[in-house]
Amino acid sequence: MRMYDIIHKKRHGEKLSEDEIKYFVLEYTKGNIPDYQASALLIAIAINSMDKEETVNLTKWMVNSGEVLNLDSIPGKKTDKHSTGGVGDKTTLICAMIVAALDVPVAKMSGRGLGHTGGTIDKLESIPGFRTSLSRQEFIDLVKKNRIAICGQSESLAPADKLLYSLRDQTATVDSIPLIASSIMSKKIAAGSDCIVLDVKVGKGAFMKTIEEARVLADLMCEIGLSMSKKTVSVISYMNEPLGYAIGNSLEVIESIETLKGNGPEDLYSISIKLASNMVSLAKDIEYEEAEKLCKEVLEKGKALEKFREFVRSQNGDERVVEDYSVFKQAKRVFEYKAERSGMIKSIDSYRIGNAACLLGAGRTVKDGVIDPSAGIVLTRKSGDRVKKGECLAKLYTDFDSIDNVLDILNNAWEFEEGV
Amino acid sequence: MRMYDIIHKKRHGEKLSEDEIKYFVLEYTKGNIPDYQASALLIAIAINSMDKEETVNLTKWMVNSGEVLNLDSIPGKKTDKHSTGGVGDKTTLICAMIVAALDVPVAKMSGRGLGHTGGTIDKLESIPGFRTSLSRQEFIDLVKKNRIAICGQSESLAPADKLLYSLRDQTATVDSIPLIASSIMSKKIAAGSDCIVLDVKVGKGAFMKTIEEARVLADLMCEIGLSMSKKTVSVISYMNEPLGYAIGNSLEVIESIETLKGNGPEDLYSISIKLASNMVSLAKDIEYEEAEKLCKEVLEKGKALEKFREFVRSQNGDERVVEDYSVFKQAKRVFEYKAERSGMIKSIDSYRIGNAACLLGAGRTVKDGVIDPSAGIVLTRKSGDRVKKGECLAKLYTDFDSIDNVLDILNNAWEFEEGV
Repeated sequence: MRMYDIIHKKRHGEKLSEDEIKYFVLEYTKGNIPDYQASALLIAIAINSMDKEETVNLTKWMVNSGEVLNLDSIPGKKTDKHSTGGVGDKTTLICAMIVAALDVPVAKMSGRGLGHTGGTIDKLESIPGFRTSLSRQEFIDLVKKNRIAICGQSESLAPADKLLYSLRDQTATVDSIPLIASSIMSKKIAAGSDCIVLDVKVGKGAFMKTIEEARVLADLMCEIGLSMSKKTVSVISYMNEPLGYAIGNSLEVIESIETLKGNGPEDLYSISIKLASNMVSLAKDIEYEEAEKLCKEVLEKGKALEKFREFVRSQNGDERVVEDYSVFKQAKRVFEYKAERSGMIKSIDSYRIGNAACLLGAGRTVKDGVIDPSAGIVLTRKSGDRVKKGECLAKLYTDFDSIDNVLDILNNAWEFEEGV
Repeated sequence: MRMYDIIHKKRHGEKLSEDEIKYFVLEYTKGNIPDYQASALLIAIAINSMDKEETVNLTKWMVNSGEVLNLDSIPGKKTDKHSTGGVGDKTTLICAMIVAALDVPVAKMSGRGLGHTGGTIDKLESIPGFRTSLSRQEFIDLVKKNRIAICGQSESLAPADKLLYSLRDQTATVDSIPLIASSIMSKKIAAGSDCIVLDVKVGKGAFMKTIEEARVLADLMCEIGLSMSKKTVSVISYMNEPLGYAIGNSLEVIESIETLKGNGPEDLYSISIKLASNMVSLAKDIEYEEAEKLCKEVLEKGKALEKFREFVRSQNGDERVVEDYSVFKQAKRVFEYKAERSGMIKSIDSYRIGNAACLLGAGRTVKDGVIDPSAGIVLTRKSGDRVKKGECLAKLYTDFDSIDNVLDILNNAWEFEEGV
């Protein structure tokens, strides 16, 4: 088999066989196929697409390119969730606690943030002492004991995905639906859970710009999951503004704790309940409505908050953060960003807000960059709110003295309703 | 400017600006753009194509990626020719002599063969002593003195083309019309001649399978030439069998000499006259018919043969080859390949014949491989000829003892008319 012929086929829009896909994935992972041939195939796929069978095969061989986590020693149906990237998305910190409080095991591996999107691991590490680097055995033991553990993505799972992702990132092929679907699903399947709940974001700041595209991606991922014997459900959620009010690591943990206390913003509460209910519904094999009732109950009764406290303690974090937010590192400066006009807010550009938070210190502009756990943005108004010129739209937390570069980005982030 | 954005545009079928093309070509040539990004752009171009303006700009910056040969010191309009690859194509050895014999300067840089196609430089080097490696000054001085010199492709002309070609060769993007056109024309334009005649092959063994495709490529190359102030003409010629009877280096030189003596096969004679006439017509600014008359005359009067003798002598070759073909290295063995059935020959697969000749020792299977100047194939029958089962179809010249691998390739090379 020659990589040349595989590229040639896909260049001309032909369907690749499972053997061809297997050859490409395994040989590329071993370093036997040069990057320039792999990137040529990826862009040919991005332009000419792949059908469902090809995408399932790509996912399957990306899974088989590395270790598949064996969670059999944990009793019950293990659940996992994934969001396709959102600014201010801290749902994992909430829904995983709700699900675990209902005795459903959540064995979750999460990523770090890059650019305008945050990562759950960075958020958790804003809690003093919190340890996200767990051995395989520690991870499994914690899930057995507490029904919840969250650790960093293992390098040994789906190594092909990591290699291909960094190539896609350099060759404008990140936003190809079959490549997104196989990338996400290969990591989820290799992580070993039985049930997978997917949150596909749609709107301005998301990869999927239209509901139709989001639906295609959501359906494709469910079909991949089912074809590999995983119970899979996807929900589609709009993202025309950041989720909740807080963007930035400790700021988002604080908002999550508030939500677990019953004081969370409506949008964050709703999507967290929706994801948790789907996870519980799949794992317990019960109707969604019944699962939703259970989820709302454990949250109201404070059991999800207690689960969070136990989870933080178990992974070495300082559990006092639950009551005392001053335990978090505090930003040296807080700036107010004020409205330049009066009117009703129509939308808030997540991409700009995410990038602004990143420049305040909350994110990385380069891989392995250092982040400031206290930096970020707390919105004070959201879509549908009326503001007067000069009122505060957002508070900016940072250790930097000058934020001129951030202001340039923020100036176009708020869109107002015309004539209101 | 970022290569990422350039790839992104072409992936989505958008038009690239001259600045973007310039950035890609010059930075890639300098080694500042990784191969995996360059290959991604090339395949996006191969799939989504480029318009005329983009192709002209690509050619222009490939020319500007290196030296442009200055032939101003040579009096008269300098002419060059190019064929898009053909098995048994030895037209340069004939038409260049005719043109030079008419006092029109031919400053020609040629390539070596790879795979099933031969190269003029390899053919010339089958003449004992012949030197194809000339200094810039030697080359120009020879053209001044004799009106003809042929040397190997200079590394300093259009270096971007060489780099991009080897990448295309690995990523199934060789047969993209805008990439072929810019590759050929960048080399021709950098080589400094005023007039360019192009021979676009069409048919089974050629890159262009249909007359429509060939026409598009031919027109595009003419437009590129004209836009860069070169008088450019293209002819389209069919290739449903090798050109002439001989395939292999010294075998082709012998057939060329025979043609210069007036004993050449009809197809080779015709296309050589056609190319030479176009070159003369452009350079002397006369009608094609007038030029054709002049070309036929110098050939008939033996002046083109005399020019060849002078050319060989001037580049250190043993001019006795003109009269005595035993001066060439002789193959150790000659096998006869016999017809397995009776009938009328419909076509002869150039690709198979070229590959068979290559395996007999006439060509390279890897870059920089060693070739046997005496190896090759001489067809004894061509399309339209009737043969009886057991009659000789071709003579195979080689130093190898066993030719079983070659027979496997040849067995399907001849196609016979049905029921004749």
